[in-house]
This record gives sequence, C-alpha cells and structure tokens, in this order.
Amino acid sequence: MDDIYAYIDAHAEEYIQALQALCRQPSIAAQGIGMEETAHMVLEMVRGVGAQAEQIPTGGYPVVYGELPGAGPRSLLIYDHYDVQPPEPLDLWDYPPFEATLAEGRIWARGVADNKGNLVARLCAVDAWLKVRGHLPLTLKFVFEGEEEIGSPNLEAFAEAYHPRYAADGCIWEAGYKDSRGRLQVYAGCKGITYVELRAQGAARDLHSANAAIVPNPAWRLVWALSTLKTPDERVAIQGFYDDVRPPTPRERELLADWEFDGPAYLENLGLAAFLRGADTEQAKADLIFQPTCNIAGIQSGYTGPGSKTVLPSQAFCKIDFRLVPDQSHRRVLRLLREHLDRHGFSDIQVVDLHGEDPARTDPDHPVVQAVLRAARRVYTQPPVMLPSMAGTGPMHALCARWGIPVVGAGVGHADSRNHAPNENIYVQDYIDGIKHMATVFQEFARE
Amino acid sequence: MDDIYAYIDAHAEEYIQALQALCRQPSIAAQGIGMEETAHMVLEMVRGVGAQAEQIPTGGYPVVYGELPGAGPRSLLIYDHYDVQPPEPLDLWDYPPFEATLAEGRIWARGVADNKGNLVARLCAVDAWLKVRGHLPLTLKFVFEGEEEIGSPNLEAFAEAYHPRYAADGCIWEAGYKDSRGRLQVYAGCKGITYVELRAQGAARDLHSANAAIVPNPAWRLVWALSTLKTPDERVAIQGFYDDVRPPTPRERELLADWEFDGPAYLENLGLAAFLRGADTEQAKADLIFQPTCNIAGIQSGYTGPGSKTVLPSQAFCKIDFRLVPDQSHRRVLRLLREHLDRHGFSDIQVVDLHGEDPARTDPDHPVVQAVLRAARRVYTQPPVMLPSMAGTGPMHALCARWGIPVVGAGVGHADSRNHAPNENIYVQDYIDGIKHMATVFQEFARE
Repeated sequence: MDDIYAYIDAHAEEYIQALQALCRQPSIAAQGIGMEETAHMVLEMVRGVGAQAEQIPTGGYPVVYGELPGAGPRSLLIYDHYDVQPPEPLDLWDYPPFEATLAEGRIWARGVADNKGNLVARLCAVDAWLKVRGHLPLTLKFVFEGEEEIGSPNLEAFAEAYHPRYAADGCIWEAGYKDSRGRLQVYAGCKGITYVELRAQGAARDLHSANAAIVPNPAWRLVWALSTLKTPDERVAIQGFYDDVRPPTPRERELLADWEFDGPAYLENLGLAAFLRGADTEQAKADLIFQPTCNIAGIQSGYTGPGSKTVLPSQAFCKIDFRLVPDQSHRRVLRLLREHLDRHGFSDIQVVDLHGEDPARTDPDHPVVQAVLRAARRVYTQPPVMLPSMAGTGPMHALCARWGIPVVGAGVGHADSRNHAPNENIYVQDYIDGIKHMATVFQEFARE
Repeated sequence: MDDIYAYIDAHAEEYIQALQALCRQPSIAAQGIGMEETAHMVLEMVRGVGAQAEQIPTGGYPVVYGELPGAGPRSLLIYDHYDVQPPEPLDLWDYPPFEATLAEGRIWARGVADNKGNLVARLCAVDAWLKVRGHLPLTLKFVFEGEEEIGSPNLEAFAEAYHPRYAADGCIWEAGYKDSRGRLQVYAGCKGITYVELRAQGAARDLHSANAAIVPNPAWRLVWALSTLKTPDERVAIQGFYDDVRPPTPRERELLADWEFDGPAYLENLGLAAFLRGADTEQAKADLIFQPTCNIAGIQSGYTGPGSKTVLPSQAFCKIDFRLVPDQSHRRVLRLLREHLDRHGFSDIQVVDLHGEDPARTDPDHPVVQAVLRAARRVYTQPPVMLPSMAGTGPMHALCARWGIPVVGAGVGHADSRNHAPNENIYVQDYIDGIKHMATVFQEFARE
C-alpha cells in the first residue's frame, strides 16, 4: 500500500481543501438550510472519483447514490450523511461553524467529525486508489443521505425500495472516533432511538402569573409527568422498559474489557466529579455501550429571557431521546411511554413521535469487521479498540441489519471532537490517516 | 363635578394622544430598553400639570417625584410606574406593542393597562381640575418608579430615604381592572412575591446525548427538584410554607362574597374546562385573593428549536414566582426553599434571589378606600366591587404599609386587558371614565 500512502501524503493539501469546501457549505436538515446545494455538491464529488451517481428522491432530502465497479468479487457499501446538526448556541464557538478554520492542527467546523470528514476521506481513498492503480480491488456502493441528524425519516422507505441495488457483502458506517488515548475505535453496532416531544397545554394564552392560584400551569404538568419517567436514581420508571434489554454476551464483555477507556480523563475533560450513579470506569464503559437511556434534550416554557417576568405560560414542551439497545424497539417504547403517562394521570400530555430507529449489532468476528481491524493495525501506530456497539445511534437497522448486511464503523474523529456541540473539530493528521485507513480497508476486505 | 367632567369630555382627544405618546415610547426595565427617555418624558408630563418635579436617582432607574399643593389639609400620594413588561412573544400581537393603535374601541399597547393608562389618566384628572377650578382641593404627591416590572429592587431604599417627604393621608395604587361584568374593582391590598431562578449545572459543555448513559443531565436534576416543590394536587410541599398564611377575616370574607366573579366566563375566555383543583367559582375567588402560589414562569434547557437535536445539555434553569399572602414574608420563603432543596438532596441546585416583596392589606373601612368607592358610584353606571386584596403584587409594603400609609387601588383596565401578555389593551371609554373617577376621588377624599 506504500504507493497509495505516498500519493495521499503528496495530495494532502488538495484533500484537506476538498473537506473544507464541503464544511463551508451549511447543510442543517433540522432547519432546512443549504440542503439542496449540499446534495448537488456531494453528487459532483462522487462523480468526481469516477462513480456512476445520481440523486434518489426520498420525499425529504435526496439520497446521493453511487456505484463504482472493481476488479474483485467482493462488494462494500459506504454509508455517510451530508447533513449536520444545528450549530446553536453560536456564541460558544471559538471559530465560526461554517468557515472550516485550520488552526491548532485541527479543522473546526460543524459536521467535520459528524460526518463530513469521513464522507470526504472515503472519497479521497477511492481517488488515491484509482490515480495510483487505475482500478479498485472491489466494488463500492455509496449511500449518502441528507437526513441522519433528524432521524433518517425517509431512509427506511428508501431501503425497502433500493436494498436489492445497494446490497453488499459489508458496510462501512458513517462516523467514528479515537478514544482519549488516541486509539482508533471500531464498532460493530449502534443503539436505537425513540425521539419524542411531550407537550402540555394550559390556558388559551399566556397570563399574568397572579392567575396561578386558579389556572393550571402546563409547565408544572410537564414537570410532574417527567418526574415519573425517570427517578433520581437514574432508572427509567416506565413499566416494561427494560424487559427487552439483551444482556451482553461473553464475547461482547471480553471486547469491552479490552477497551482502555480513560474514565478520569473523560471526567476531567467535562469538569465532572463522577459518572452517573457513581459508576466506576468499568461500569461506565458497560453503561455507555449496553445501557438504554432517557435523556431530556430540551425543555421550554414561559419567559426565559433576562430578568424576571411574572408570566403563567400557556404551553410547555420537552424533547426526549431514549437510546435503545437490542432487543428494544422504537414502536414498543413509544407504546410503553403512552401507557405509562395514561396510567400516571397524564393523559393530557401529548406525545409527538419525532422519530425512531431500532438498535443493531454485527458479529464482531465477521470478515468486514476483521478487515477494518487489520487495516487499522497497518495504518495506526496504536492498536485499534473493538467495541460491540457505539453509544450513539444511526439507521443501521433500517439500512443494513434488516437486509442482512453486516456493518462496521470507524472514522476520523477523536475523543474531544465535540460533535453535536460547539467547536466540533478533527485533527488534520487523523483525517489523512483516515484516508489511508479506508484505502487499506478496500485492500483487506477485497483479498479476504 | 359636572364642570370638570365636561372639560374632560371636551379634551378627550388630547388626553388620548398623551397616553398614546407615552405608550409609543418603549420602557422595558427587564431589558434596559428606553428607560432614560421614558423617565424624562414622564418628568415633563408631571411638570406639565404644574407640579414641582424631579428625578430622584435610585441606583437603578430613577423615581420621578412630584408635589402639587392644594387648598385643603388632606394629602394623597399617587403611585404609578413608567416601566412595562417585555413584549415577547412578538408574533402573537395583532397590533405592534409600541404603536398604541386605536382599534375596536380600544388602545392596544404594551403597558397601556399596566400601567401607563393609569399614570396618564391621573395626570389628566389633575389637568382638568386645574384648568376648570384653578387649584386642587388637596395636596398631591407623585411617586412614579421605573422598576416595578422587575420587582422594584431599589424602591425599598428610596422609601427609607424619602418617606418623610412623600408621606400622605392615603395612597392611590398603580393599576386596576373592571371585572368580566364591567364593574370597577377596588382593592385594598396586594400579594407579596418571591421570584427566584433555580439553576442546575451538568458537564462543562453540551454533549452528544449518547453520553447520557454516564453523564448527569442538569435538566433531569431540575425536573426532580421542581417535582418536590409542588405536588400534582397543587399544594406547595415546602415545609412551613403555609404556616404564616393568615386566615381571611369575616369582613374580608363578606367583601369577597359581594364580588360577582363570573367563573364560567373567565374559564371560557381562557379555553379552560375547570379551575385549578376543580374549584367552583366561590372557591376560585377565595383562592385568587387569599391563596399563595408557586408558579413556573419559565423553564429552559438544551435544544428548543425546530426538529430534533440529540443533545445532552450542560445547564438548566427555571424561573419561579411565589405569590405571598399576609403574613408570609419574602425572606422566610427564600430560607424555607433553600432548606427544602437541601433536605431533599438538591444542594446542587442554585437558588438565585431575583427579587422579593412582602404582602400588604389596608383596612377596607379606611377613609381613602371609602373615598374611592364613593367616587366610583358617582362616575360608573354599575356599582364598584371591593376586594380585600388584588391577586397580583406590588411594592405596597415597602412604599406604604411599612410607613403607615393606607393604600387603595382602582384603574382603567378591564377583564380582558391581557397585561403581561400579548395584545395588552384598554377601552378608550374606560380611560376617559378613569380620568373622571380620579378627579372625583380628589374631591371625595378632600372633603371627608
């Protein structure tokens, strides 16, 4: 692979500029900003490496789909997304979120870690292969969607219609991060999600709070309802919620034990005194990978500006994401939530299903997983870390697991990449290494 | 009084324009908008009716103070405020909040009911008296403050320094409202308030919500803490909170019974099925006047924009106002709240004291109260309603009750005036009648 690595090093500047160009184009699916422009830009990038590519309409933002035949019989699907999280709160960014500033050895931009850095790195790996060797050792297929950060509401329907076309022997998943000691994390699964908005309604309009003696306050209704969902011991109190949680296998536990997660560094980085429930590092690792969650992602009611305004609000809402683990399912959690609220006297609280995805896990001994690990051992100075699942969520089930396509993920992020938060960033060196790693994965998976 | 009434009718247009001019000048104390300009404008208005007037610095926004000697021995203090509530949410206003639009027989503006309409009406009553009779029948003193809507943080110190100067035989309080059947409400007291912000802190920054399995969420901490403050039966659960609540006297209960509060109309107007705790109309009346409250005025954490963002917030806050009744006190409630949180395991929740005022009540048989009632019977077609207290709060204790000055209030608002909410308004006719009423109060109190 040295010829290809040398080519990548020689063209590093060009590859960095390609990433900066994509990061400078906002693509905020939740706010409908820049999506069309970005889809077009990505389509041109896929065509630019020689693939047959098109935009496939989905009812939402299109999937950019591409195919590029190679010499060997193996086929590999690459899944990424071209949308990013909203950049707010803007005032907490040290570098503007859509300028892709190069500083302190990093590239700073919304989406650079999650996941434009990976999308572009993979295309650059293809580019380097073709420029050096003239052809790929295996067939590649690309599914680049534009709605991952809003829960991929149209990917399931896309998958149902197109899975015969994008079917492959394995799939490389979108993002990945080095751990706090700089070791590449490879994961073979993801959590599912149930994302809901709970809404409470009071009077027809906001009132002077003197009326609070006789008029119901929807913020109080919401607080009381929420306080029944999860108790201060951090247990989800929804009846049946934990019933479908599959205990980790011995092999999964073994993998987890190999993961040198630096608990004290993680805590220090976040200014925290302790993990949730006072867990030690080993327990925190297990929780991160195997525990479902119930998280308040946002809550709002009434006056939240400066100073004091004595208002009795007419509406209150809360955004909650549940992270699900095998064998929980979105549909069932949604039903249990509704039943729970009704049973606790909160039939007045509306549950809006904003999106859901089922969890997925790949056998850690599958060839595509092993190819990614072998490639990592060749490219990186430190050995990779294999995780049974990532702590986050993606439409792995809808796109792959459901159709029997094994999935594995690794990417160019690091432990302080701050995805979904201000100052998202990746190291330039990780980006270049990521290109080499992916080029090597093509080789390793093709020859297996 | 017919000569004065005729003068007021003949100059109605001029008096309406004076009110519009003041309403068009924003004066949002909570946001520091337009305060200096408004203080100057009010000073010129007070001087315009012939009073000796000055701005008295307070450390915050100044008090506009004025004195105007009259023929008789009696003195009357008039208390109003020139600041207004923030106008947000702006998109719910049918008429812009600072244009003072004349439409549908009403004037629409932030602050027109609370309480610029009263401030200007009282000055117009003085103007009419002087133009028609050449002199007042009693001495007037004016205290127009600029910080009522942010809890009068500097009025207590002002009162301590200046009470010998503004001392009077009675005080007319700032605002008032007709009930839903159009009868003038006269009140002889107000509730106190404890306005706090509760703050919870999590990690040093917002995180991807995948971390929720191991990182504490301050929004959950806040929800759990709040759920211990008040229970779903709408009782404040803070130990000792109700200890100092003075039961209503027989005279107060008698006054309340005379108040024909239209419960069904109130509910229908607000789109509500029932009063809090399922109270009937009589109970709702009693609750409104005699019950303390614990109201969530605002709560916020995390992502509250459109769509779904999977964030684990780093901070959460909640604004709460407690309305207090005699003999509760701000200082004690603040202490009980802190003790309650500590006792329930929420020492991590910060309590920020945004402001506090003690409750106050005047003897309903005091001459100044009786003068206001007699004047109302002369001016309005329907008999007035006497309430032992208003449901709202003002610095009555700090400015008057503490120094032995009896207070009574009535004003130009009506049951749908929407103070502190979008579309604040008063009827033009109520404004003109209010001028006549105040002119008559001068007469009635002077001759008592």
